[in-house]
Amino acid sequence: GGGGAESLDYEVVENYAYREEQAQRGAIYVAYTVAVKWFFALLIGVGTGLAAVFINLAVENFAGWKFAATFSLIQHSYFVGFLVYTLINLALVLSSVFIVTQFAPAAAGSGIPEIKGYLNGIDTHGILLFRTLIGKIFGSIGSVGGGLALGKEGPLVHTGACIASLFGQGGSTKYHLSLRWLQVFKSDRDRRDLVTCGCAAGVAAAFRAPVGGVLFALEEVTSWWRSQLMWRVFFTSAVVAVVVRTAMRWCSSGKCGHFGSGGFIIWDISGGQDDYSFEELFPMAIIGIIGGLLGALFNQLTFLITYWRRKYLHKRGSKVKIIEACLISLLTSAISFGLPLLRKCSPCPEMEANSDMKCPRPPGMYGNYVNFYCHKEKEYNDLATIFFNTQDDAIRNLFSAKTFHEYTAKSLLTFLAMFYTLAVVTFGTAVPAGQFVPGIMIGSTYGRLVGMFVVKHYKKLNVEEGTYALLGAASFLGGSMRMTVSLCVIMVEITNNLQLLPLIMLVLLISKAVGDAFNHGLYEEQARLRGIPLLESRPKYHMRNMTAKEACRKQKVVYFPRVVKVEDLVSILRCNKHNGFPVIDHSRNGEALVLGLILRSYLLVLLQSKKDFQHGALPCDLGGRSIPIRHNFSEFVKPVSSKGLSIEDIHLSPDDLEMYIDLAPFLNPSPYIVPEDTSLSKAYNLFRQLGLRHILVVPRPSRVTGMITRKDLLLKE
Amino acid sequence: GGGGAESLDYEVVENYAYREEQAQRGAIYVAYTVAVKWFFALLIGVGTGLAAVFINLAVENFAGWKFAATFSLIQHSYFVGFLVYTLINLALVLSSVFIVTQFAPAAAGSGIPEIKGYLNGIDTHGILLFRTLIGKIFGSIGSVGGGLALGKEGPLVHTGACIASLFGQGGSTKYHLSLRWLQVFKSDRDRRDLVTCGCAAGVAAAFRAPVGGVLFALEEVTSWWRSQLMWRVFFTSAVVAVVVRTAMRWCSSGKCGHFGSGGFIIWDISGGQDDYSFEELFPMAIIGIIGGLLGALFNQLTFLITYWRRKYLHKRGSKVKIIEACLISLLTSAISFGLPLLRKCSPCPEMEANSDMKCPRPPGMYGNYVNFYCHKEKEYNDLATIFFNTQDDAIRNLFSAKTFHEYTAKSLLTFLAMFYTLAVVTFGTAVPAGQFVPGIMIGSTYGRLVGMFVVKHYKKLNVEEGTYALLGAASFLGGSMRMTVSLCVIMVEITNNLQLLPLIMLVLLISKAVGDAFNHGLYEEQARLRGIPLLESRPKYHMRNMTAKEACRKQKVVYFPRVVKVEDLVSILRCNKHNGFPVIDHSRNGEALVLGLILRSYLLVLLQSKKDFQHGALPCDLGGRSIPIRHNFSEFVKPVSSKGLSIEDIHLSPDDLEMYIDLAPFLNPSPYIVPEDTSLSKAYNLFRQLGLRHILVVPRPSRVTGMITRKDLLLKE
Ligand SMILES: Nc1ncnc2c1ncn2[C@@H]1O[C@H](COP(=O)(O)OP(=O)(O)OP(=O)(O)O)[C@@H](O)[C@H]1O
Ligand SMILES: Nc1ncnc2c1ncn2[C@@H]1O[C@H](COP(=O)(O)OP(=O)(O)OP(=O)(O)O)[C@@H](O)[C@H]1O
Ligand SMILES: [Mg+2]
Ligand SMILES: [Mg+2]
Repeated sequence: GGGGAESLDYEVVENYAYREEQAQRGAIYVAYTVAVKWFFALLIGVGTGLAAVFINLAVENFAGWKFAATFSLIQHSYFVGFLVYTLINLALVLSSVFIVTQFAPAAAGSGIPEIKGYLNGIDTHGILLFRTLIGKIFGSIGSVGGGLALGKEGPLVHTGACIASLFGQGGSTKYHLSLRWLQVFKSDRDRRDLVTCGCAAGVAAAFRAPVGGVLFALEEVTSWWRSQLMWRVFFTSAVVAVVVRTAMRWCSSGKCGHFGSGGFIIWDISGGQDDYSFEELFPMAIIGIIGGLLGALFNQLTFLITYWRRKYLHKRGSKVKIIEACLISLLTSAISFGLPLLRKCSPCPEMEANSDMKCPRPPGMYGNYVNFYCHKEKEYNDLATIFFNTQDDAIRNLFSAKTFHEYTAKSLLTFLAMFYTLAVVTFGTAVPAGQFVPGIMIGSTYGRLVGMFVVKHYKKLNVEEGTYALLGAASFLGGSMRMTVSLCVIMVEITNNLQLLPLIMLVLLISKAVGDAFNHGLYEEQARLRGIPLLESRPKYHMRNMTAKEACRKQKVVYFPRVVKVEDLVSILRCNKHNGFPVIDHSRNGEALVLGLILRSYLLVLLQSKKDFQHGALPCDLGGRSIPIRHNFSEFVKPVSSKGLSIEDIHLSPDDLEMYIDLAPFLNPSPYIVPEDTSLSKAYNLFRQLGLRHILVVPRPSRVTGMITRKDLLLKE
Repeated sequence: GGGGAESLDYEVVENYAYREEQAQRGAIYVAYTVAVKWFFALLIGVGTGLAAVFINLAVENFAGWKFAATFSLIQHSYFVGFLVYTLINLALVLSSVFIVTQFAPAAAGSGIPEIKGYLNGIDTHGILLFRTLIGKIFGSIGSVGGGLALGKEGPLVHTGACIASLFGQGGSTKYHLSLRWLQVFKSDRDRRDLVTCGCAAGVAAAFRAPVGGVLFALEEVTSWWRSQLMWRVFFTSAVVAVVVRTAMRWCSSGKCGHFGSGGFIIWDISGGQDDYSFEELFPMAIIGIIGGLLGALFNQLTFLITYWRRKYLHKRGSKVKIIEACLISLLTSAISFGLPLLRKCSPCPEMEANSDMKCPRPPGMYGNYVNFYCHKEKEYNDLATIFFNTQDDAIRNLFSAKTFHEYTAKSLLTFLAMFYTLAVVTFGTAVPAGQFVPGIMIGSTYGRLVGMFVVKHYKKLNVEEGTYALLGAASFLGGSMRMTVSLCVIMVEITNNLQLLPLIMLVLLISKAVGDAFNHGLYEEQARLRGIPLLESRPKYHMRNMTAKEACRKQKVVYFPRVVKVEDLVSILRCNKHNGFPVIDHSRNGEALVLGLILRSYLLVLLQSKKDFQHGALPCDLGGRSIPIRHNFSEFVKPVSSKGLSIEDIHLSPDDLEMYIDLAPFLNPSPYIVPEDTSLSKAYNLFRQLGLRHILVVPRPSRVTGMITRKDLLLKE
């Protein structure tokens, strides 16, 4: 695997420059850093909240306007209505795919696998750039507004991460938007924490689920975690909640067009079933199993189709991508408009006197019982109620309580088959795309189907079909994404109902277990396909029987002496692609000593700046502090999401090549080491848990000069 | 620090015996282990759920019966009522302190600091024994039923951990309750995971908050975390939720006496305020600040009082402890009965027609407006409503909505001062004691006080005093325990209301920040006092400027040769207390080589069994597998919560002392090592993140034989 993906340097390089910088830092500087961290957490929350509001506002307005126009046109002619509906969808999707292919290729897809990779230690090129952010925001407005079978939640997580990363580098340097006084975070390590905050903010904004956001960041994306970070992430989520709520309030007075009536996903299911009997556990377990099966199938199919797309289709350039997206848009429009046309309308049920539901629903409103191609007055089209609608409204209708027998089994099955196919086919198109809402759609459809059977067979129980739809949604997401706690909390927060928590837990446990029997979660599968080599949290079983030395196979270690001739340096860097090199010093009496590890990126910076070239091959004296500090520590930091320098970018004169360079001040003097016959599983734990990039394998030591135990680490000062 | 606390061995000792055992294991064995793990998760859930139901049932019945008796007696004579009330309380408290002091000393207190220590890597003697479990269950029934200012939630966490640990060792060996086929978990590492499950189960059972339980285990107690574990913990919590719910259902038909009407803490505040205006944020911030201040003060006072108790009082034996508890019980009874007597009754407010509240409340019922020492018919005593009641009911009354002006500021202030003092004084008594419910009491009192002012001053707003009481409760807990996400979720789950989530978050952030300015959280302070040396998740700042070698100071490392004479072994073990020793082999040509690390506990087992004694000083051949396996891997495992063997327990004949022992098959061949000039903060990260007990400090290596990078760890098989 690997492809073009490069690892991040989460380890602190405690070299000379770093130590100098640390020594200069006073208490004020430390306080300033902490303050900036919290300030950034605030900004990330505000930024992500506003981005979410903007996306929702735009999508709701586009979609609302589209459906309003179509509904008024079909009063006269269904054909004209269809035409306009299709063209609006096509235009929106086209704008989205155009932005993505021409301007921000990294904005395609959900972005969660890439962010997961980033937090696991792998940088995917371009994933956190400013242009990706812009592409993501406008692209997802187009793709979601254009009615494709995808959602805006995954992209929002990516958006949050981009915003966080931009703050992390103090703005976008490319677009001259950077602020010097905010550039305090110089290492991949600090940026990682910010990106974690950004992810949580994204989920919090997407679902208005602040606790769910924290848990998502914790369970699904991060690979390392500290409880201090938890608090900061929590703060960011709280800020998002406040921002979104304020915006919703402001909009509720009608200032935001169609937004505010439909608005953010919150599917309030209060007034539904709030108790359950033991007999119901059986059909619920069935839902869990279906969820696991359909979810695993979804992962498998999307894996295959993405594989095929990458291999045959997307190689041929962006034109093919654009045509593909347009065809899928046409297909989606045709199915969502055409299928309900083929369906016979059902007569309206008797409405209870005090219900605010109307059948058929009045034109221009949201709600159940859509009149679409019905010839009689008091009729509705159940397929149109879910199909010919925004996904948010469709889910609201599927979750709705007190609407027994609204849907026929045939309609639900048709919808399930069609929408499932559309979701699979749409997955991997070159537009920003989330899988949460489509997943909820699919799940709630078969959930409601099971609910209908339960209502029929256990006649006496107080059963609501909407509750089963909710459980179905949870089960499908569990079966596909394999999250547990975070998904559970998100489901609770979006439905605003705590009563069903144990049931959601049960269904999730079953569907995850069933899904795990077949394949990995959706994000892991996709990461694998994209060449993002995620390290799992535990070593594989067979690693117990291997040693660290065996893992390195028969590689000959490429290393440098302390003082190296520029010519040699360049030629070694040219002829291999390694990113870290041990530096070994030979003292006069022939004894060798490993001084540390130097990163390729550091060497390239040194070669480019030429400041440290010297004429003699003699090392400078570090202890006496005689070397002037010619480099700021921050010069060595690789810019976010860029390939950084390459050896081909560096041009040296023949004179330069004759010079020497002393690597001692720049190397990492204490890389982590393991003796060569350590078992690989121990080395794995070291690597994974500390987030390393290199481990040096060394011979067994011959002496022990000290022991560190807990007591030695408890020093006070 | 340290005292008698010993570290746990979380690291896997990959010695010869272990490798042999691993090699013998087939796929069936692995599947069996996984199945047992899940089975244990189930059992822990069921066990903790049942324990919680039992404790609640007992407490509610004792307390309910006590208050019923007192209320019927005071119709005739307040003096007789007081006498009976006091005596019942005294009897209950006496039984509790008696059980604890005579039978299970480790059951005193909340147990959370000790469990936190256990999961951080420190074993406190006796904390997870069967007798501690029994003492905890019956002790907390006595102490809570006896009306002391403490709760049953902390003890439930400890109970859950004990249950988990007992399953982890397959029952209690001491009481011959163990099952061989369940003894699959032989290492401290596996037990740690189970104890984590147990903690989550405890919180889930105490508050009926399954998600809160998972988060509590994650945020507050564990030091290491894997996402696989999260799923198992989540499952356990779900099981607890189901068990508790089933029991509650069964009891709701009145089969459980007083239990079922009051029952588990769930303070439903639906029907209260579900919206808030920006003006309210100011008083809410005030609540946060008060919470931070009072919480930090509480930590400080309890720290001092516990310090004083441990130093002067509890040294003198259990009689003093018993007398102390009895005095505190008498004081509590006198205050809670006496103070309301001094208070003038207030006239009942006008009740709304459709409200189910009555004023004064009918005798034998639960609810607001308690008639206590009131001379007129339509009067109630507001101080008695909170003071002369079980804590659960008092909190329900403080949280209640639509009860404006029920309490006077004077009553609330009196109660706050008195209860705060009682809570501080009671803390550290030799009975099982939690701080959650007292914290909620204190917090909701000043919260309601602030709420009263808000109601008075912002007249137009739809403000409920009960909502402010809830925020106050959150703020005090945040200020004292310094939890964030888990506390937030627990508050939401116990009040069954998601609407207030952002407000609770806000208040918690403020109170934690204010509290952190003064001292550490309650549990950390208590752990420090008890000599439990918790390692924080991050190294101290000054560690960056120290090397690993400096941390070991000038210690001379005590080590063993590969084949050691028994006499030397015994004398070395006698004359120091170290728990790990490097083993260094000198080959014939004089070269030395560090073979690994041997634990004291292993050496003691070897000395006791005598099986491996040999006559010659020649090492046996490991490679040729010529040594017979005389030891089962499990023999080396230290029993839970016991001191294990000591060198004094071992008796050797003079002949034995002349023998030799080859340590090679038993040592840990790959302990983690760091070069001596590694910065201490790196060594700290290694120690803390991997949960180590020993790090060997070695000289810088002279060669690098290999490099491990991400690519090398991605091998497939
Ligand atoms: N200095 C070196 N000398 C010899 N072999 C090396 C050296 N550095 C790395 N290798 C080996 O070369 C292979 C690829 O190395 P590379 O440095 O590209 O790491 P990687 O796993 O691709 O991670 P990344 O490039 O993202 O840091 C690995 O098998 C690694 O063990
Ligand atoms: N083999 C050894 N030789 C020399 N010094 C040691 C050795 N083992 C430990 N020490 C030192 O002795 C001190 C106390 O050691 P001890 O083994 O009791 O560890 P501890 O921190 O108390 O943890 P625990 O006893 O719980 O494992 C520490 O400063 C440690 O560095
Ligand atoms: Mg590489
Ligand atoms: Mg010790």
